[in-house]
Amino acid sequence: MELTASQLAALVHGDVEGNGEVKIGTFAKIEEGHPGALSFLANPKYTHFIYSTESSAVLVRRDFVAEQPVKATLIRVDDPYSTIAQLLEMVQEMTKIDKRGIEQPSFVSEGVDIPEDAYVGAFAYVGKGAKIGRGAKIYPQVYIGDGCEVGEDAILYAGVKVYAGCVIGNRCIVHSGAVIGADGFGFAPSGDGHYEKIPQTGNVVLEDDVEIGANTTVDRAMMGSTRICKGVKLDNLIQVAHNCHIGDNTVMAAQVGLAGSSKIGKQCMVGGQVGIVGHIAIADGTQIGAQSGVNRATKPGERIMGAPAVEMGEYARSLVYVKRLGKLFEQVKNLEKEIKKQ
Amino acid sequence: MELTASQLAALVHGDVEGNGEVKIGTFAKIEEGHPGALSFLANPKYTHFIYSTESSAVLVRRDFVAEQPVKATLIRVDDPYSTIAQLLEMVQEMTKIDKRGIEQPSFVSEGVDIPEDAYVGAFAYVGKGAKIGRGAKIYPQVYIGDGCEVGEDAILYAGVKVYAGCVIGNRCIVHSGAVIGADGFGFAPSGDGHYEKIPQTGNVVLEDDVEIGANTTVDRAMMGSTRICKGVKLDNLIQVAHNCHIGDNTVMAAQVGLAGSSKIGKQCMVGGQVGIVGHIAIADGTQIGAQSGVNRATKPGERIMGAPAVEMGEYARSLVYVKRLGKLFEQVKNLEKEIKKQ
Amino acid sequence: MELTASQLAALVHGDVEGNGEVKIGTFAKIEEGHPGALSFLANPKYTHFIYSTESSAVLVRRDFVAEQPVKATLIRVDDPYSTIAQLLEMVQEMTKIDKRGIEQPSFVSEGVDIPEDAYVGAFAYVGKGAKIGRGAKIYPQVYIGDGCEVGEDAILYAGVKVYAGCVIGNRCIVHSGAVIGADGFGFAPSGDGHYEKIPQTGNVVLEDDVEIGANTTVDRAMMGSTRICKGVKLDNLIQVAHNCHIGDNTVMAAQVGLAGSSKIGKQCMVGGQVGIVGHIAIADGTQIGAQSGVNRATKPGERIMGAPAVEMGEYARSLVYVKRLGKLFEQVKNLEKEIKKQ
Repeated sequence: MELTASQLAALVHGDVEGNGEVKIGTFAKIEEGHPGALSFLANPKYTHFIYSTESSAVLVRRDFVAEQPVKATLIRVDDPYSTIAQLLEMVQEMTKIDKRGIEQPSFVSEGVDIPEDAYVGAFAYVGKGAKIGRGAKIYPQVYIGDGCEVGEDAILYAGVKVYAGCVIGNRCIVHSGAVIGADGFGFAPSGDGHYEKIPQTGNVVLEDDVEIGANTTVDRAMMGSTRICKGVKLDNLIQVAHNCHIGDNTVMAAQVGLAGSSKIGKQCMVGGQVGIVGHIAIADGTQIGAQSGVNRATKPGERIMGAPAVEMGEYARSLVYVKRLGKLFEQVKNLEKEIKKQ
Repeated sequence: MELTASQLAALVHGDVEGNGEVKIGTFAKIEEGHPGALSFLANPKYTHFIYSTESSAVLVRRDFVAEQPVKATLIRVDDPYSTIAQLLEMVQEMTKIDKRGIEQPSFVSEGVDIPEDAYVGAFAYVGKGAKIGRGAKIYPQVYIGDGCEVGEDAILYAGVKVYAGCVIGNRCIVHSGAVIGADGFGFAPSGDGHYEKIPQTGNVVLEDDVEIGANTTVDRAMMGSTRICKGVKLDNLIQVAHNCHIGDNTVMAAQVGLAGSSKIGKQCMVGGQVGIVGHIAIADGTQIGAQSGVNRATKPGERIMGAPAVEMGEYARSLVYVKRLGKLFEQVKNLEKEIKKQ
Repeated sequence: MELTASQLAALVHGDVEGNGEVKIGTFAKIEEGHPGALSFLANPKYTHFIYSTESSAVLVRRDFVAEQPVKATLIRVDDPYSTIAQLLEMVQEMTKIDKRGIEQPSFVSEGVDIPEDAYVGAFAYVGKGAKIGRGAKIYPQVYIGDGCEVGEDAILYAGVKVYAGCVIGNRCIVHSGAVIGADGFGFAPSGDGHYEKIPQTGNVVLEDDVEIGANTTVDRAMMGSTRICKGVKLDNLIQVAHNCHIGDNTVMAAQVGLAGSSKIGKQCMVGGQVGIVGHIAIADGTQIGAQSGVNRATKPGERIMGAPAVEMGEYARSLVYVKRLGKLFEQVKNLEKEIKKQ
């Protein structure tokens, strides 16, 4: 399907600048633009590409000021990033193939009811007493243990594993390879050097609208629940240990690790590869820089970084200090010489 | 099933303080207590919860001294953590459903004998010449390559993958998504910039009583075996490279990475997200703090931390020094002024 | 099969020193040698083992000079590591069982053509419109989404998941648990605190001769392609975010994380657990030390380390400085005393 730049602009309440008649049939990143494509400019780092892009049209902010001639047609909107998201959404809606029905062979335990509009892919396994919500999509090779609940319109991509007794909320999306509800890492040292396993009898609860990335692991609680609250988004390869609690709408980048019983507040942002020790409370709105090691509680809205993590300003200062150390050593050497002379 | 606090106390050789007649039917964390639940207090950080918990009874140490009135019944024991573990164990024993038999469809290669008390879940694959021990539980979608051995009472949870020729010891537990025996990362640079693959012809051996966490990867040896010795416990998302050796009863937290041919001693404790370079020997009883980067051999019982990791005391001192750097820069500036004046 | 040391030497164009008649039937690491085995000595760290190894023969460099008597027969070659690789290759070729044909039950969508010399294991799933190349090996429990392309002689080990629309090049090897093409981590904050998902409508392209380690995740692009170029080798548990680009023949050790839209050059070497921020360009030939945090572009051939990563020499100096800080504090204290005295 092709639209003209003017038609597109009308669709997204934007203003056209340049040729409104160019035809748009696809999307492309601004630096990989080609004729017929629509790009967007949101990150200022990419501004220079607008002067060279081959894309036919580019979504820009209303206040964008070109400092050189631009070949592409501009479509001015309030927020180019959310506008492109809307357009992608429209396209996805138009092109998506709605998976439905039960493919064979699959394994659905006796007595489990699969709603008519749900999908169960081939080689998927649904354990005894499981409850599957309306419109849920269970892709091939998914494992749903005994007694699990899968909410309405939840999507479990190929190969997701959910251990017995766990709960997946409505509209949750769980990506391939994620493991929900494996045993927490709990062992008690016996006298003679080896470890006894502590039974992990709790479960995992994903509340509504949670998204879990590929190969992320969320361990079941020792007692009670490991709980991921409404709207939380976890990237790939994250470790959430037993009895953790992650508050509403918190987002975490890939490869973060949370130790046992850590409590993360609402609306937090956690950078990639961060580690958080167990049994501490991260307050609402905390922002944690990538690769940080967090070993203390935080205050609401605090921004921290480093290992051990400190307030962002302190972190920045300590980097500067370390960078200047060579000079400091020299200064002290000179002082010592001066003193000797006197 | 409900027991009174007194009955429970008798079961675990504890002493009751308060109302022995309260009924206990479940477990709860002390901070999430509710009537009818038993909690425990092991970590001193949680002591303040004992004065507000809604749990009906709490397991505490014999020497616990309450500093305020406690509503819950106390059951005094030697070690509340191991006592709760015992109780959870009892409950688990009573409630567990013993998986047995061969679900269909599954794929068991011709000539492979599945013992009567073993379990092979639907969509599990057992390769040619594999040997499956008595009581082994092979969950759905597990892959066991040609020639593997799975020990007695071993548990391979849904979706575990074991490449050809690997050995899983008796009573091992391998969690979902773990990959045992993928090729080690071995390549030789060719002259023209690309890399030639070095065949990885060895295998992986998990000795008895090993537990491997979800999505952990243990690579096969180039030659010989990557060996994980008796009683080792590995958490989730850990990388064990080819030809590593991990000694008896060593425990590692999530997201640790071991480079090729590293040799870890017995009874070591390795914190989360630690990296250990290849071809070094970590001595028995070494303790390594979270996020450390270890690039040297250690002495028995050494406690190290940081990147590069140093002895714990030295690490702590260097943190203090860095924290005081701002002041040091000022001191030196003042000294320079003083000198100039003179 | 057994060969004499002399026969082996002839095979690899080596020169025998010592008893050429000893029989060799297997391989062993030099430190685990035993009679009948061939070992090799490539890493100088292992030199001392040559005087005690029980192996019958050892491959050494032509210029190796023994400083003590050696019991094993020596076979001198130009490059022992590549020679052993060749020999392992030969053995692997002779012993490998060529998987072919379609095991049942598997799920191949209507209209998809499986070439005669390809392999589709039991419980594998091939989506609509997928194209499978000649000689491709699709192991059990692999998922290939709708419209994917799998190249000639590509190997997808058990349980690999490839989302719809992704492309796997010729001779690629993808290890178990790897997830190719899950949604990139893209969300736009809505006004009220929750996040809206940005559709990820692109795909992943693995060019020819790429190897992807176990449980590594490569996310699909938001628009366009996440691209892993020819000959790239990625170890286990690596995160490649949406819209990344990795140039020819770059190698990365385990647990590396690349944030979105990072562009890595050709022939780079990236150590384990490194993190690279999004939207930056790493130049060709860059070498990055383990656990580094890279937040800036690099120059061709640059060697960097640390977090934030700096040029290797600067990193080494800063380590030395930090080590000497205790002494510096003392020096300054003494200076202050001296000044006071004056």
